[in-house]
Amino acid sequence: MSAHYSPFEPPRRILMGPGPSGVSARVLLAMARPTVGHLDPDFLELMDEVAAQLREIFGTENRLTVPISGTGSAGMETAFVNLLEPGDCAIIGVNGVFGQRMKDVAERAGARVVAVEAAWGEPLDVRRLINAHKANPRARLLAVVHAETSTGVQQPLDELAGYLRGTGTLFLVDTVTSLGGVPVNVDAWGIDVAYSGTQKCLSVPPGLAPITLSERAVERVRSRSGKVQSWYLDLSMISAYWGSERVYHHTAPINALYGLHEGLCAILEEGLEARYERHRRWGGLLQRSLMERGLELLVEEPYRLPQLTSVRVPAGVDDKRFRRALLERYGIEIGGGLGPLAGKVWRIGLMGETCREQSVMLFLSALDELVEGRG
Amino acid sequence: MSAHYSPFEPPRRILMGPGPSGVSARVLLAMARPTVGHLDPDFLELMDEVAAQLREIFGTENRLTVPISGTGSAGMETAFVNLLEPGDCAIIGVNGVFGQRMKDVAERAGARVVAVEAAWGEPLDVRRLINAHKANPRARLLAVVHAETSTGVQQPLDELAGYLRGTGTLFLVDTVTSLGGVPVNVDAWGIDVAYSGTQKCLSVPPGLAPITLSERAVERVRSRSGKVQSWYLDLSMISAYWGSERVYHHTAPINALYGLHEGLCAILEEGLEARYERHRRWGGLLQRSLMERGLELLVEEPYRLPQLTSVRVPAGVDDKRFRRALLERYGIEIGGGLGPLAGKVWRIGLMGETCREQSVMLFLSALDELVEGRG
Repeated sequence: MSAHYSPFEPPRRILMGPGPSGVSARVLLAMARPTVGHLDPDFLELMDEVAAQLREIFGTENRLTVPISGTGSAGMETAFVNLLEPGDCAIIGVNGVFGQRMKDVAERAGARVVAVEAAWGEPLDVRRLINAHKANPRARLLAVVHAETSTGVQQPLDELAGYLRGTGTLFLVDTVTSLGGVPVNVDAWGIDVAYSGTQKCLSVPPGLAPITLSERAVERVRSRSGKVQSWYLDLSMISAYWGSERVYHHTAPINALYGLHEGLCAILEEGLEARYERHRRWGGLLQRSLMERGLELLVEEPYRLPQLTSVRVPAGVDDKRFRRALLERYGIEIGGGLGPLAGKVWRIGLMGETCREQSVMLFLSALDELVEGRG
Repeated sequence: MSAHYSPFEPPRRILMGPGPSGVSARVLLAMARPTVGHLDPDFLELMDEVAAQLREIFGTENRLTVPISGTGSAGMETAFVNLLEPGDCAIIGVNGVFGQRMKDVAERAGARVVAVEAAWGEPLDVRRLINAHKANPRARLLAVVHAETSTGVQQPLDELAGYLRGTGTLFLVDTVTSLGGVPVNVDAWGIDVAYSGTQKCLSVPPGLAPITLSERAVERVRSRSGKVQSWYLDLSMISAYWGSERVYHHTAPINALYGLHEGLCAILEEGLEARYERHRRWGGLLQRSLMERGLELLVEEPYRLPQLTSVRVPAGVDDKRFRRALLERYGIEIGGGLGPLAGKVWRIGLMGETCREQSVMLFLSALDELVEGRG
């Protein structure tokens, strides 16, 4: 006999954690449109539009710009397993969970990783990255996280990009938490590979990972000596489905792509500059308001991301109890710290749809009530 | 300046191809429910329910039963990269696209593959598989496709399962197109690893890949000498998120899981036996009706899948023109042939929601009209 299962009624939440962020009704409803086939002529047009929308948001004309059929981490893995072959050297900046993850993924692809570390909450030292490259000039790629989701640090990219442009080393940037929240200009900055996730500043449910590759990155994939270790994430086959050949690879996640298309429509309607400005405004308001209350932000200006703020847990406040009360009494989700920051910081997201004045006001009111009562 | 993008209005389709299949309104609407966090206590309960539902449908008590965050092919890759290490021997039955794909995936994981082939449209010869095992008794696994989506062949499993039970070799079965349409009894048959996709007989949009591992398969993963080559598909980490530890791995595709939960609710409400009977009934009607019209089915009884019928394109009918007319005039999608069967067969799916008398009647009427007019 089968147990009885009831339809799931999600609780009312305001998603102010490090992702997923809130999703608008128009995007949710887009996902509820009837499923069609992954080779349906109408669906193929939708795919072309999604690719064009992503190019606009990445600031690129890269032909190979597609959403990978997995979450942001699948985007990361796609980048590394396609570009690296066993024995390749990869220089990777590590100042948080996602830098660590890049190192792990690159090592699983057989690369020799040169890690350049910085304290969690601080940016990577660009001089040290450049020196690591001078010591390893034949490195296949140099990778950094643009917006480190575990700390809220924004990594400056321009000097690094300028330096790498004259070398044979590819510049790979994780833009999971930056894309759609702060400027990302792939072509202007000379980024060779960037990938992202849908559930951060794009405000689309998790499940897809946009990725873009420059011509020289594509050439690198083309000139591999062996097959990509992942069949599912093999860009040569994925691009044959997204390109004009339309060769079946795997069944695309149709309804998730409906949602992404609609979410990207909304972003382009708002305008990228207006969207960045909105993130700066309400992120700035949150950060000033926290400091006015005597709370300490983890990250120094000018490395603070507007869309993700790490603040130290105030003395005398129990981290877990506070976050549970915030969720249960006010329906507000924020994130705790990870790794060395576990129990020490809260991560407060104001991403995409969630980035509104009301979110800031509500969070501050709840904070005042709960901290007054010491959580 | 940004191009103008309009919301996507999918065309009206009856999905009678080899997948995706039709999706009910209740599943579509479930996916439109508000997104919550991937560590939200309510969402964690949903995950437990989904795992329990999948156990029922797989016919297993395997603790490690989870949906992988990718399409069916990601489920395939998960199975192979977790179980195989470089140098391992894998015996793989190949009688269609998905057997070929298993071979490719296993080789990318560094395995030495012993392929046992059969003609496309015929089942694998169990004697030859057993002989291949006798010649390679230390093979890590033996893998077959239960329902070959490229041909419509159902592979008998019982004799093979009985033989392998006494060996140290794991029995891996691709149930992408079988699960929910014909009986799959993982525990009773002694299957060690089975994976599926959501967009076939489960009638949920593509994007998730249920997988289940027996205790001895889990033990194999645990005793690996090296890390799994895929970070994203590493079951040791995925199971720590789905298990009681709830360790963050990647952000689960929240709304896709709402849809899967709702779809599995519907399946269990219908009852598995009733569902298999429904597939037998309407699949049988379609097949008899095609034969009555003088058309030739590719697969002999008793290897014919009720949910996916391959029929030879009648002499004098242009394959592509026929399928285009079927789609444009009647909104009916069917599949063409793949590989050696390209241009020679049509693949007609009656999976999950699509498996109704109306689908059969409509297809036959359209067929009669179009073939009368010679497509």
